[in-house]
Amino acid sequence: MPHAPSHVLNRRHTALRQTLAARGLDALIVTSLPNVLYLTNVDASAAIVVIGAEHFRFVTDFRYAAAVEATRGTASECVGVELVRVDTSYDETLASVLATLPGAHVGFEAEHLTVARHQWLESKLQDRGTDAASLVATAGIIEALRLRKDPYEIDTLREAARRLSAVARGVLSEGEVRRGRTEREIALAIDWRIRGAGFERSAFDTIVASGPNAALPHARPGKRTLTESDLVVLDFGGVYDSYCVDLTRTVSLGTAGPRARAIYAAVREAHDRAIEAVAPGRSRFDIDAAARDTLGRHGLAEAFGHGTGHGLGIEVHEQPRISRRRGDDAGPGDDDAVAAGMVFTIEPGAYLPGWGGVRIEDDVLVTDTGVEVLTDVATELIEL
Amino acid sequence: MPHAPSHVLNRRHTALRQTLAARGLDALIVTSLPNVLYLTNVDASAAIVVIGAEHFRFVTDFRYAAAVEATRGTASECVGVELVRVDTSYDETLASVLATLPGAHVGFEAEHLTVARHQWLESKLQDRGTDAASLVATAGIIEALRLRKDPYEIDTLREAARRLSAVARGVLSEGEVRRGRTEREIALAIDWRIRGAGFERSAFDTIVASGPNAALPHARPGKRTLTESDLVVLDFGGVYDSYCVDLTRTVSLGTAGPRARAIYAAVREAHDRAIEAVAPGRSRFDIDAAARDTLGRHGLAEAFGHGTGHGLGIEVHEQPRISRRRGDDAGPGDDDAVAAGMVFTIEPGAYLPGWGGVRIEDDVLVTDTGVEVLTDVATELIEL
Repeated sequence: MPHAPSHVLNRRHTALRQTLAARGLDALIVTSLPNVLYLTNVDASAAIVVIGAEHFRFVTDFRYAAAVEATRGTASECVGVELVRVDTSYDETLASVLATLPGAHVGFEAEHLTVARHQWLESKLQDRGTDAASLVATAGIIEALRLRKDPYEIDTLREAARRLSAVARGVLSEGEVRRGRTEREIALAIDWRIRGAGFERSAFDTIVASGPNAALPHARPGKRTLTESDLVVLDFGGVYDSYCVDLTRTVSLGTAGPRARAIYAAVREAHDRAIEAVAPGRSRFDIDAAARDTLGRHGLAEAFGHGTGHGLGIEVHEQPRISRRRGDDAGPGDDDAVAAGMVFTIEPGAYLPGWGGVRIEDDVLVTDTGVEVLTDVATELIEL
Repeated sequence: MPHAPSHVLNRRHTALRQTLAARGLDALIVTSLPNVLYLTNVDASAAIVVIGAEHFRFVTDFRYAAAVEATRGTASECVGVELVRVDTSYDETLASVLATLPGAHVGFEAEHLTVARHQWLESKLQDRGTDAASLVATAGIIEALRLRKDPYEIDTLREAARRLSAVARGVLSEGEVRRGRTEREIALAIDWRIRGAGFERSAFDTIVASGPNAALPHARPGKRTLTESDLVVLDFGGVYDSYCVDLTRTVSLGTAGPRARAIYAAVREAHDRAIEAVAPGRSRFDIDAAARDTLGRHGLAEAFGHGTGHGLGIEVHEQPRISRRRGDDAGPGDDDAVAAGMVFTIEPGAYLPGWGGVRIEDDVLVTDTGVEVLTDVATELIEL
């Protein structure tokens, strides 16, 4: 559970209400659970928020109602929240809340509501006739607020990155990665250290990819035993007070050969160039290009098949995407520019099928003047 | 990754194609990832299947394309799959697949497709004009197939339950639950044992709820230190070859008082009565009532606020729900009856705010003649 102070939650609610007013919406139905958490501090597996200018309703069942009640009077209380308990069905309860908003224009999160639930709600509203609320599809309203982290979130992410860096240094220097151990054993040891460092859980399935497996960017740790001259990609993350951080290092078992050294150096240069390119106002496509062009100059353009980075926050993959411009992206404009308060990964890599791969990943914060690298682990090639 | 043999996958495809034919559908777009896994053996974080009478298209990006290729020629190959690689956008690629099906009636999973994606696809199809495929909302088609496990799945779940039972016996008998330890430390130890027993990961956030915290069915393990006379609810699960199992035991630290003994005995009786009620053809509501009525006879009707059980399989909460009949449930009929091959939990509990709680959970398989309890851990109250 995060503990954003009440005044931070209030500021988020105010910003959201301003957006709703600007769009002519009387209320918004929030069904995305990360968005619910952002507005309430409650990390529920089932909950719906209905927020309007004058009300804030939190629809949940007995499991999380108790969690909401427990914050009353604390510094991280979600002030003004009205608890609406679900007895049988979430959507029945939501329909009863909408019945209290006759004639209202109520936004819903089209990217987070299924067709089935939407159709059911529409049919319920039609049953009510002409005084019913009307549903309006919206996209990305709360995600736009989450894009720039507030000071509470930055503090949390900074602390999370500090802890994850300590985990990484321990993994690299305390003998976890060694000959004869399987990928799976190392992944387990990493997860154990992540939990021991105070994380709620790993942010995703830890990747330990050795030798040829390192050519698969999303390899799953298997029974392969680490052997001399392997390159080993170690990619792991943790969730700390509901916020995600993510880090990758690639190490060599024994002295790296000339090809491994050359590829590692190219990826490291791409990583450094991309971080240097981060500053408020810079296009996210330009940051990607800083990494991609560097790899291209080393003949590794084809070997880098994914984006340079992704946003971090309540979700381990969120906006902004640091990637190539795609056909369906909007044209140049403010939306492409990164801004102070954004937090994302920089993680170029090079993958050569049958041979192996290298990836180096850090987490960065865009500051008012440039960039702060939140993670703190040396990037020189380590030969174990 | 599961390794369902090719003939099992083929049987699933055949059953699905029969359903599609019966509903007059030329194809189905599968966007639910658990459903994709069921049809392909591929546990992807992004993939879409489009299946028709004569084709089986697997839309994925380079990360999982390699996983599909790796099964070619193996015993668990998904035969007949045509790989469609995503370059930029999944939905663009899906639209290009639909463009090869002019005039077709194509189902989509309305419970698993968002309004935003559906609207985008519809607009793409409208651009094509009169020869475009038409989209038809469907619900629960593949879930209906998954409801009764096939022999491969039963073997996997049986093995998973065997391993989870061994974890539970170790946790209970090898000193993990002891005075002075925090809930969080015990949860971490349990997760470590789960991974050490060969599970890919914990199936959900492990619950260790002690003393008054045990009154919260979904408590999160915290900094509370276990103390004499606590009841401690331990609820944990694992994912083994992509299949989920789930188990709960409640123990007493030191000699339990008369109230704790009485409540424990009532929950245990409810657990036993519910398991005895499991047989092919029995209504899932009757199984729930067997537990609920038992607790009611002990004056604990109000203390049991959740359902008696949930289905297990690729997801840790799936059908059937062993619960009270609700307003929005269908009336009596075949759909209420459990059938051979279904696997679900039986997990009655009693929760007394401020005091504590008890839950006992096992996993059961409906057999041709009755029930097989897959988990194997004593249910007597253990006093540690």
